[in-house]
Amino acid sequence: MALPKDYIDQKCSLSRSLEVLGERWTLLILRDAFYGVRRFSDFVEHLGIARSVLAVRLDALVEHGVLTKTSPDDGGYAEYELTDKGRELWPVIYGLIFWGDEHYAKAGPPRLFEHAEDGGRVLPDGLCSTCGQRVPLSEIQATPGPGLVKPDHEVDRVTEALSEPRPLLEAIRR
Amino acid sequence: MALPKDYIDQKCSLSRSLEVLGERWTLLILRDAFYGVRRFSDFVEHLGIARSVLAVRLDALVEHGVLTKTSPDDGGYAEYELTDKGRELWPVIYGLIFWGDEHYAKAGPPRLFEHAEDGGRVLPDGLCSTCGQRVPLSEIQATPGPGLVKPDHEVDRVTEALSEPRPLLEAIRR
Repeated sequence: MALPKDYIDQKCSLSRSLEVLGERWTLLILRDAFYGVRRFSDFVEHLGIARSVLAVRLDALVEHGVLTKTSPDDGGYAEYELTDKGRELWPVIYGLIFWGDEHYAKAGPPRLFEHAEDGGRVLPDGLCSTCGQRVPLSEIQATPGPGLVKPDHEVDRVTEALSEPRPLLEAIRR
Repeated sequence: MALPKDYIDQKCSLSRSLEVLGERWTLLILRDAFYGVRRFSDFVEHLGIARSVLAVRLDALVEHGVLTKTSPDDGGYAEYELTDKGRELWPVIYGLIFWGDEHYAKAGPPRLFEHAEDGGRVLPDGLCSTCGQRVPLSEIQATPGPGLVKPDHEVDRVTEALSEPRPLLEAIRR
């Protein structure tokens, strides 16, 4: 159901943000972009999302300046990458991950976000549990947590890459 | 489109959070709850949401322990109130409001969130721009910002209440 337009235009920045981001596939796509996913087929395989749905969501995110799409000169695969505006959404996405960890991860968090320098946990306010400093995005490492289920079958490339600690935003490529 | 269930069960706390919160009405309902809205008819009037949709969303939020529903002994109106688990979502909602303010509020933020004690702005990481301290939810005041459009017609009770500074979570009642 669409929100009444005059409401969106006039009132609340949350409404405006949700116009851009307001359905769950979009937030999962952005999460994957933070994990380093850049290629269409990798989003498809990792998310299990229909190609048609993904195409619409990616186009919208490019249109709103949250992602850029670049096509290499050599005719290789196009890549989607977070803009600065997109990167500003990390605290929101991490806030939702953390809340889910707190309330729904009975076996512990499936993935932990650490300060690469000292291994401290990144807290929801962005500070490191060890050094107490604000951790820039470039120093956050995603690492498998106690709740991560080891798959007993062959997995897609993104899942495989994420089975080891790796810095956020570092491109996952073939 | 539903997310594949095995994906949700096994992998990511963001997926789990979005199962509970993952559509925009839910986040707008929660925003209103932080603003002090407690009654069904106030949500309806302020959000312009269909009663049937609101009922489903509120029930789901109660079921997931994000809101409580209390019916007064005197047969008055039932009230919905944020639980501790629900209140933990403020940073996420404020993060989305702030991002919308930064990128879509051309006339300035329609609403500002201030540290009641010193009038400092609450930053997205929850710290006060004036005193630098973490601002507890109970000390945050929502106040009309430069981008708030003054309505030229009679407004609902919630809009009216929010036209003056008021503390978050303070019940809006008749």
